[in-house]
Amino acid sequence: MSLTKLFFAFLLLFLCSGLDAQELKLVPYVNPFIGTDNMGHTFPGASVPFGAVQLSPDTDTLPYAVNGRYNPEVYSYCAGYQYQDKTIVGFSHTHFSGTGHSDLGDFLLMPTVGPLQLNPGTKEKPESGFRSRFGHENEKAEAGYYQVLLEDYGILAELTASARTGYHRYTFPETQEAHIILDLMSSIYPYEDKNVWTAVRIENDTLVTGYRQTEGWARNRTLYFAMVFNRPIKEYGCKNFAPNSTYRGFWGKFNQSKNHPDLAGKQLRLHFDFDVAQGDAIEIKLAISSVSTRNALANVKAEIPYWDFNRAKNEAQNLWEKELQKIEIEAQTYDDYVNFYTAMYHAALMPNLYMDVDSTYRGLDGNVHTAKGFTHYTSLSIWDTFRAFHPFLQWISPSINGDILQSMLAHYKQNVLKMLPIWSHHGNENWCMTGYHSVCVLADAILKGNTKIDPLEALEAAITTSNKRDYENIGDYLDYGYIPFEKSGVSVSTTLEYAYDDWCIAQLANFLGQEETYREYSVRSKNWENVFDSLSGFMRPRSIDGTFKQNFQPLQTHGQGFIEGNAWNFSFFVPHDPSTLIERMGGNNRFIEKLDSLFTMELSDEYFQETEDITREGIIGNYVHGNEPAHHVAYLYNWTDQPWKTQEKVRKIAKQQYKNAPDGLGGNDDAGQMSAWYLFSSLGFYPVSPGNTLYALGSPMVKKAKITMENGAVLYIEAQHQGDENVYVQKLSFNGQLLEKPWIKHEQLLKGGQLIFVMSPFPPK
Amino acid sequence: MSLTKLFFAFLLLFLCSGLDAQELKLVPYVNPFIGTDNMGHTFPGASVPFGAVQLSPDTDTLPYAVNGRYNPEVYSYCAGYQYQDKTIVGFSHTHFSGTGHSDLGDFLLMPTVGPLQLNPGTKEKPESGFRSRFGHENEKAEAGYYQVLLEDYGILAELTASARTGYHRYTFPETQEAHIILDLMSSIYPYEDKNVWTAVRIENDTLVTGYRQTEGWARNRTLYFAMVFNRPIKEYGCKNFAPNSTYRGFWGKFNQSKNHPDLAGKQLRLHFDFDVAQGDAIEIKLAISSVSTRNALANVKAEIPYWDFNRAKNEAQNLWEKELQKIEIEAQTYDDYVNFYTAMYHAALMPNLYMDVDSTYRGLDGNVHTAKGFTHYTSLSIWDTFRAFHPFLQWISPSINGDILQSMLAHYKQNVLKMLPIWSHHGNENWCMTGYHSVCVLADAILKGNTKIDPLEALEAAITTSNKRDYENIGDYLDYGYIPFEKSGVSVSTTLEYAYDDWCIAQLANFLGQEETYREYSVRSKNWENVFDSLSGFMRPRSIDGTFKQNFQPLQTHGQGFIEGNAWNFSFFVPHDPSTLIERMGGNNRFIEKLDSLFTMELSDEYFQETEDITREGIIGNYVHGNEPAHHVAYLYNWTDQPWKTQEKVRKIAKQQYKNAPDGLGGNDDAGQMSAWYLFSSLGFYPVSPGNTLYALGSPMVKKAKITMENGAVLYIEAQHQGDENVYVQKLSFNGQLLEKPWIKHEQLLKGGQLIFVMSPFPPK
Repeated sequence: MSLTKLFFAFLLLFLCSGLDAQELKLVPYVNPFIGTDNMGHTFPGASVPFGAVQLSPDTDTLPYAVNGRYNPEVYSYCAGYQYQDKTIVGFSHTHFSGTGHSDLGDFLLMPTVGPLQLNPGTKEKPESGFRSRFGHENEKAEAGYYQVLLEDYGILAELTASARTGYHRYTFPETQEAHIILDLMSSIYPYEDKNVWTAVRIENDTLVTGYRQTEGWARNRTLYFAMVFNRPIKEYGCKNFAPNSTYRGFWGKFNQSKNHPDLAGKQLRLHFDFDVAQGDAIEIKLAISSVSTRNALANVKAEIPYWDFNRAKNEAQNLWEKELQKIEIEAQTYDDYVNFYTAMYHAALMPNLYMDVDSTYRGLDGNVHTAKGFTHYTSLSIWDTFRAFHPFLQWISPSINGDILQSMLAHYKQNVLKMLPIWSHHGNENWCMTGYHSVCVLADAILKGNTKIDPLEALEAAITTSNKRDYENIGDYLDYGYIPFEKSGVSVSTTLEYAYDDWCIAQLANFLGQEETYREYSVRSKNWENVFDSLSGFMRPRSIDGTFKQNFQPLQTHGQGFIEGNAWNFSFFVPHDPSTLIERMGGNNRFIEKLDSLFTMELSDEYFQETEDITREGIIGNYVHGNEPAHHVAYLYNWTDQPWKTQEKVRKIAKQQYKNAPDGLGGNDDAGQMSAWYLFSSLGFYPVSPGNTLYALGSPMVKKAKITMENGAVLYIEAQHQGDENVYVQKLSFNGQLLEKPWIKHEQLLKGGQLIFVMSPFPPK
Repeated sequence: MSLTKLFFAFLLLFLCSGLDAQELKLVPYVNPFIGTDNMGHTFPGASVPFGAVQLSPDTDTLPYAVNGRYNPEVYSYCAGYQYQDKTIVGFSHTHFSGTGHSDLGDFLLMPTVGPLQLNPGTKEKPESGFRSRFGHENEKAEAGYYQVLLEDYGILAELTASARTGYHRYTFPETQEAHIILDLMSSIYPYEDKNVWTAVRIENDTLVTGYRQTEGWARNRTLYFAMVFNRPIKEYGCKNFAPNSTYRGFWGKFNQSKNHPDLAGKQLRLHFDFDVAQGDAIEIKLAISSVSTRNALANVKAEIPYWDFNRAKNEAQNLWEKELQKIEIEAQTYDDYVNFYTAMYHAALMPNLYMDVDSTYRGLDGNVHTAKGFTHYTSLSIWDTFRAFHPFLQWISPSINGDILQSMLAHYKQNVLKMLPIWSHHGNENWCMTGYHSVCVLADAILKGNTKIDPLEALEAAITTSNKRDYENIGDYLDYGYIPFEKSGVSVSTTLEYAYDDWCIAQLANFLGQEETYREYSVRSKNWENVFDSLSGFMRPRSIDGTFKQNFQPLQTHGQGFIEGNAWNFSFFVPHDPSTLIERMGGNNRFIEKLDSLFTMELSDEYFQETEDITREGIIGNYVHGNEPAHHVAYLYNWTDQPWKTQEKVRKIAKQQYKNAPDGLGGNDDAGQMSAWYLFSSLGFYPVSPGNTLYALGSPMVKKAKITMENGAVLYIEAQHQGDENVYVQKLSFNGQLLEKPWIKHEQLLKGGQLIFVMSPFPPK
């Protein structure tokens, strides 16, 4: 087919399929339940792309600790919902997607009928509280919409959202006693003292405002809300579950439990009672703000200034349609469509908008800031997302990635510790995970042409961050060239990550012509070699005295110097210099052998039973896809003389690890990183080393794809002879020119045109 | 002496004495120690008139409760300082003046030398903590300035203040270990959970910011600070005294106890260490803000943009001089000068400025508001101050009183309960004491010509407040015409106060020509008659069934239906209608007898031992001056045929209850009310019934006074033949015209001119 013909074929294809968002061509492929079972840690509720509100059912809110000891069960509820649960406690407004630690779950609402109950009750005995049974047969989740029948009450609950506002519609049966519970105690990862303070004002018979301050993963987080009802509150009340204080002020003049509009305390649950007839719907719009209740109310008014649930739902789904249409694919099977668009959906649930309609937000310094000239985002799970998520965003939505870069620099400026974000959310740094991977996100974006930030500012922030000696052994790293195992339980993985991060800084310095910095960080980037043990062929914990750790178990995950991975997986973590790694590992052949065995070795369960975040299904041989450190590893064959092995491995991982089912993810989706791996891999290439503008060749799974980029260019991808057996790329051409090497350049993608893969069942020799 | 001569005599007097504030003519008469012993509850530290900061030593911070029970000793520390104490815990930035319940004590600083101690220690064993011994021989307090030698450390501590900034100068001895302790746990009226949250950032080596949120008398109070040092911090550290949380986040990556600049928790104490040589001073400027740390820093920078302690002290004292010079007196004795100007000083310590240099403040609704066109004030102890303090302010500083009226209306608008303030501070209503006396303050000011608020708005707010049925028996009051004793422990005093408040509303309505409201509230204002028992001649608790309470003890204070007073004192609380009261009490002669016996009856201590707020010295016979309800009572003789008895009583009260000594006040100064009584009485008249523009005649104590009013008019008061024996007013003339009746009109005061009292040792017949 000539180029012209191809072009017209595509044109026809897409014109016919209709670009009118009202049609929701792609939204129906999104299955928000994927990842809600087991360890995916996704939520099925309603949100808009990168929205501030994630309005979703919580099936339980287990305590973080029982009798002072960590309760491992809480981990299942990182996103509030577990598919196998039989009851719903309520619908709260903030959720992370796919994370492996958690927080949020703010402002849980639950509609009930009958005698008032202000305790959630237990999953074993749902009738002991306000929770309700539900079944998946009466549950539906779409991008931007969720519905469920609350069986205990006969209430149909429907949820949708705008950027900062959750919109609830609860359709009631015949009842004399309709209640809406507002549970300010309910939290994700809750513990006894997590609520620092909460306050509520019943401003009038349809408006309630308030806030909650919590100490959790975010140490100092305040979230305000404004909640409007579509019909007048008849009566209301409140119970404070906190122990009585020794101080007795004068608020006792009021009966604060009944119709008292000015409430505050540490453990409040409220109920609002309504008159409803059968089939009546109580509709609620609840907006959040990090700044004030006044701003929260302004957010509601600006975003959803009407009472029309279906319209709000349509607006949310149109936003999703627009987001999904950035990539239009032709897939082999229905499930491939679902997996692809659900991945796109999951890769647009975080980071989250973090500013009000007037562009103000509460910053890391506790002060209210105005985002000038950019949209401020939060919830940056960077240890996960620097790998493929941010490169994906930089390619598909560079303006959003640019906003995130600006948010990172704002964080840096507001941070009295003068560091770029590690894992930040809601105006807080939570310090989760290792490395200082913000520098990779910055370098990658800048090298790929993102001009939304001043690159010199970015470099300064990166340098300052990377020299923060008292942060997680950076001082040791600088003094020894590696982190001695006496100093840290994750000494090797952190050394490897710092070395890679330093390479990113070097690239940025080089890009900016800062020779000296480039040289300094290039030297630092070789520090991975200091923990490589030629004898064992593994990255290995090393002592202060320079010797390697005795009694070293490269298969074990815990206590061996690595985080979320064993030495086997982490030994390949030199994304910036696979060639040298191969050389150090004994050259091409020995490296291939080693990589082969990673995927093929047979391990007993015991090696993985202590690994959090992943299920047994998240593992292929000893390759752990459920955690991030090895996400680039399958692509490393490209640096050997057998790049076709990448192609078969990638296909295998994609098939095995991504399924159209609630338990379809083998590990945490991790704020979209797991999904971003799938998206790149589906299109046939992967950013092994962000900070480098080359993508490594994989094996596309789509038949066709059309990517509409922000610069106006359109890239058409075609995988000719695509098929389940045809996993190997026989030929690759870009705009008619054969690509001899297994690399695709970012500038090629940006230019647009035709990227043609010719697939074959036979590995090319 | 002719008027012209008199005028020139005065002119000469005042020109010679010099009006240049730099000279501090009147400031030297202020003795801030008056009231610091016993029950005065004043503080000796530094402030400016109506300033936001009251930087003062705290000699102890006892717990509010011990073993879950109220600790009566805490009451002595309402202002943080007790004169008889031998140790100082530190210097905190916020204090009420003269109140009988408390809060505040924010941001306590203490300089120390030697081994670091982070516990305050005990008064019995001061060396067990960071507190220091001190002695009054090495202590000095002036308006706007305080100094003390901290004996344990050899540190000379000096304090001054601007409106929002406390300025500390600590002069050190030779030491290797100089510390400044910042105690964020320390509070006035502290209890275990009072600190809801605190956070601190060490922004750089001379700037520290942070905030504290407390639950206390104010339920939901957040105060931010910014603190700058005049020399670099060498090292610093922090200890969190709160029990460990069950939740373990990732802040443990840092050693937060040492040189860690990002701190938060519930119970923090910090230390900052410095290099000093002998005689070096560490100077600190700490500003507060209700809005943000950013605003606190802006406050410092705007108010004291220099390092010059003496200059700041001079500026503060010049402000005081200017404030005091509003009234210039010629007194009989040195102590009379001191008592008068200290009363003026105490009557200008509250209310307190409550907005930042950009006019923003955190309101009752938790939102940040901008005070447009007025200065926002807080800390309104209205049950006390409606009596004489606000009338005094309305006369002498009507612009400030107008700002307070506007602050009251702002409170009303922000209050979801739609009530004017009862007792409000720092963006909170604390609901202390009874009545809704804001309405009196509004009515009195408006009737006296204050135009800073819309009177119709004021009336609407007053009406709404007075009809809040669920607030403290207002519903009962409206239903029964009195509050039955079955419904309230303070049924009689509250009924009396509501009746008077209603009369104020009636006056305001009448002033605005709102006939119907005038009539309605005039009827309500007679409700005092419903608790008057003609048989006993006392106000007396009355039952739902209309009968009066059996077993009634008119001398006892507690459990008899009254607050802070017994039936004897409260039975005279009909300030708005003494004539009818006299009639109901049996007419002129019987009323005089009763009033006489109030002052002369001899009571055993037991009757007063349960009365808080006052000492035995606060009582004359059974007349309790130490509490407010009887403050107008001595002036009631003016409604009889023996007004001269007012004159002798007033003189007696003034002499006995106001002394130039730390224990010189017989009861709480109560936010300036006790002092305002003295000021009016010293000048010869008193506002018996605010809301009425007449003042009742008393017995002036000054020889001369010159009052410079804001309208430019000047009133000269002269008490001819003044002397200790000459307590009776033989003649009274205004601008040459004889006043036949014992009243002075507010319009006369405003006009200015000469008010001449001719004093005599003989009561006029």
